[in-house]
Amino acid sequence: MMSVSQQGDGEAIEEEASPLNPPAAGAESLCFSASPSAARGLAEGHPGHGSEQSSHRLLAYSDALISIIATVMILPVCHTKIRADQELEESLQQLLTTKIAVYIMTFLIVTVAWASHIRLFQVIERIDDVLALLNLACMMLITFLPYTFSLMASFPDDPLGILSFCVCAIIIGLIQAVIVIYGFRRPYLLNAHICASDDQISYKYQILKMTLRAPALFLIAGILSFIYCPVAYVVLALVIFLPYITQCTQWCRNKIKGPKELQRKPFYTFHPNEPLSKERVEAFSDGVFAIVATLLILDICEDNVPEPKEVKEKFHGKLIEALSEYGPEFLAYFGSFVTVGLLWFVHHSLFLYITKPTRLMGLLNTFSLAFIGGLPLAFRLTHEFAAKSRNELEAIQISCVIIFLASLFQFAIWTAALYNEKETLHRHIRYGGKEHAFMFAKLSLYPSVAFVTFCLTYVLSKFSTEIFHLMQIIVPFAFVLLRIIVRIALAILTWLFGRLKPRTSILKEEEESVISVSEAIVVEHPDSEHII
Amino acid sequence: MMSVSQQGDGEAIEEEASPLNPPAAGAESLCFSASPSAARGLAEGHPGHGSEQSSHRLLAYSDALISIIATVMILPVCHTKIRADQELEESLQQLLTTKIAVYIMTFLIVTVAWASHIRLFQVIERIDDVLALLNLACMMLITFLPYTFSLMASFPDDPLGILSFCVCAIIIGLIQAVIVIYGFRRPYLLNAHICASDDQISYKYQILKMTLRAPALFLIAGILSFIYCPVAYVVLALVIFLPYITQCTQWCRNKIKGPKELQRKPFYTFHPNEPLSKERVEAFSDGVFAIVATLLILDICEDNVPEPKEVKEKFHGKLIEALSEYGPEFLAYFGSFVTVGLLWFVHHSLFLYITKPTRLMGLLNTFSLAFIGGLPLAFRLTHEFAAKSRNELEAIQISCVIIFLASLFQFAIWTAALYNEKETLHRHIRYGGKEHAFMFAKLSLYPSVAFVTFCLTYVLSKFSTEIFHLMQIIVPFAFVLLRIIVRIALAILTWLFGRLKPRTSILKEEEESVISVSEAIVVEHPDSEHII
Repeated sequence: MMSVSQQGDGEAIEEEASPLNPPAAGAESLCFSASPSAARGLAEGHPGHGSEQSSHRLLAYSDALISIIATVMILPVCHTKIRADQELEESLQQLLTTKIAVYIMTFLIVTVAWASHIRLFQVIERIDDVLALLNLACMMLITFLPYTFSLMASFPDDPLGILSFCVCAIIIGLIQAVIVIYGFRRPYLLNAHICASDDQISYKYQILKMTLRAPALFLIAGILSFIYCPVAYVVLALVIFLPYITQCTQWCRNKIKGPKELQRKPFYTFHPNEPLSKERVEAFSDGVFAIVATLLILDICEDNVPEPKEVKEKFHGKLIEALSEYGPEFLAYFGSFVTVGLLWFVHHSLFLYITKPTRLMGLLNTFSLAFIGGLPLAFRLTHEFAAKSRNELEAIQISCVIIFLASLFQFAIWTAALYNEKETLHRHIRYGGKEHAFMFAKLSLYPSVAFVTFCLTYVLSKFSTEIFHLMQIIVPFAFVLLRIIVRIALAILTWLFGRLKPRTSILKEEEESVISVSEAIVVEHPDSEHII
Repeated sequence: MMSVSQQGDGEAIEEEASPLNPPAAGAESLCFSASPSAARGLAEGHPGHGSEQSSHRLLAYSDALISIIATVMILPVCHTKIRADQELEESLQQLLTTKIAVYIMTFLIVTVAWASHIRLFQVIERIDDVLALLNLACMMLITFLPYTFSLMASFPDDPLGILSFCVCAIIIGLIQAVIVIYGFRRPYLLNAHICASDDQISYKYQILKMTLRAPALFLIAGILSFIYCPVAYVVLALVIFLPYITQCTQWCRNKIKGPKELQRKPFYTFHPNEPLSKERVEAFSDGVFAIVATLLILDICEDNVPEPKEVKEKFHGKLIEALSEYGPEFLAYFGSFVTVGLLWFVHHSLFLYITKPTRLMGLLNTFSLAFIGGLPLAFRLTHEFAAKSRNELEAIQISCVIIFLASLFQFAIWTAALYNEKETLHRHIRYGGKEHAFMFAKLSLYPSVAFVTFCLTYVLSKFSTEIFHLMQIIVPFAFVLLRIIVRIALAILTWLFGRLKPRTSILKEEEESVISVSEAIVVEHPDSEHII
């Protein structure tokens, strides 16, 4: 890099002219101060480009696009009409075989693409115009993946579905490889760690190898699809679970041969503890929550405005009567918005205290979001059937199961964070921390309410709808009053165990943590800057 | 505030325990250091709540929700089927009277709600759990506004539409008032400026008055709707244009009576130069761009997967033939994705250099986004009609007009920024700055291409489709090569005017700006931190 820097001079100093280029602190500044000179040499050959920018907004936009695309396949599931005389269980089985499976698989595949996008832009930290345009091309192909996937599901024997999927995936991989090569030709765009490192070349080949591994396998799958489709599907599954397979084999090898020397490359390790960009996990989750919360109103706005003619003829011009026909759908909308909103609230509270999400937590988050995507379907079902019918009871039970699983995976994120709490959690939320009990209550509220509702619908199946609506009304208030409830519960516990543990020690503990707060703020300051 | 701070002690120190509480710099730190003691006194009375948080993610989620809702009413417009034998112009006129008007009005009303949300959270800068839940309730009602609005449009004579709209708007206003009151009872949640100010009370009443003004007028409109609907609509329009009316009357009064003494309250001034949160304008725009870019794929995923049965019977099992029927829709998808993506790219480049957007720029941005929302409709229309038909020509011309207006309003944002460039623009983009010519080229590319295409379709109406597709293909490459093109153009200009202005002076100018870069970075550093 340095040898290059001595070649050029003159116009390429322009590279520094970008406005959003604050000099980084510490070791990173080394890299940034080196970059203009490197750029100088490089730009000599390519005078066309320049003006690097912060990648923040590009990534936010990509996250928004990917989150919409991940949840899009729930629409065909939602819009499947079930006739009132049909048994719900039966038709759900039919649905399950195709549409729901397509939804879940699409969600997982799109999140795999998203994860690879995160990894790529953890290496390339700054962008310029060319990278922004390349990324947009990449996004366009990712948004097309769900369609190819539903083709595959509808025509499993036709090679066209798997072929179009493979072609998309290969082009995505190639564009990402171009982005990597482009990034390494302009080191000032790279992550500070790589930029400051001595052997950029080895980094480059490692990352390129990882980026091109998937497209190569997709190419094989595409060729195989002409010969014998089932084998192609196996290869496809292999690619998607490749990170986990790599991880397992590595783990096994380490167990047998003993641990290898510590790898110093922190990128593309696929280790469950590999840190994930917290900002992007939040942005992606926000996108999913937002689109799921509004999915039902999208339908309502389009379909549930009565025709003036119909109102005149059928309801004698009385609009309110016509609207009361749609009553259940409005109820479904409010139910799903409230539930999604509160699950967002729990997610938001949780991620306030997570300092560094890992890949494992990201995976659990994906599962949680996949179930949240199913909520509009569940709520729509709940209000579609005649009161007290068998179908209605089942729809309510399905809703409870979905809420239970979605919130349980949120709880699992916390558990996974607690497992490695010193690195992943803020000190106040760690086991024994001041806010621990409160967070525990917040995270366990939905699973327990959903579980109780589910059990009650079995016992009191006659009142299942009433119980379900009661739950929907109570939960928001429970969240508002949660802090008081936790205080009371803790007071009762303290009072009950008062004899075992003298009260003064608890007070002392509280005081200690109060004192440590001021230290914490000083210590956490660089961290919190990073988070914001 | 200080008198309060001396009352309490003990448990309320917990208020400081939040992790995301970096001490602010300068005058603001005064406020923050005062806040725990104030909180101490307040929390004494309300031990239930606490743990304030950064509002960043709450606002991002709200922006995502509002942007989806703002664009939702384009769906009924998009899904209106136009029969091939129908004249497009005629049916567009029918559409215009209701659905397109509903879309545009919804977009504007939702952005008015969004603007009031921005203003509110410029006052309340930090949140706690209660505020997060109140905000979610507010969001739920905002997402319901488009529906009430389409009721109004379908049944203009029925008071139910306007009544439901007014009820929603009143409740939103009341919730916002509760948020203000709640915020002022916990001053550590407030904007540092207000928090540090001596007369919080006067601020509180000013902001409450502004927040409750709209609901009061909506109440009047609601009551009037029972008596005589048209008057209610007039009142409604009054509320929406209230900020502009206030501004005009103030301006007129100032002209007649001479300027009043300088108001020192920087909130709720409704002045066109009032700064807007750049972060939120970007987040909202990203949301609109993302949902618009994916609207067509949402439809394609749901509707354009052929039925296995149909393929077997109609196409003799040949999937590729069945898919080629949908060819035009895929083309429409790629066309709209590319155009929306590139308009996002221009928007992104522009906002990289805008340091402080004003209300006027926000308004222009809203208009630009409203037209971008119409793009999927335009592209769908383009591919719906038989080749070389009159309808097709008109559809292409409509597309050109929409692209032209959307990109022209982006250009207008830049012009508005240039008008007050010292405060709103980064120095490199100001008139005469290094990047000025390049930004000019970026912003004028789409308007000029759309204009040229529009003119060409008149002259060469036989080849209109080919010209349009050629434009779609050329524009992305033009963006990639734009920097080179601008360089060449500038070089030619320099060569042409070389005799008038000696070349050395230009070089000198360039050198000067290079030297000033290092100063600029030092100066801009606190600023750029603020932006990121």
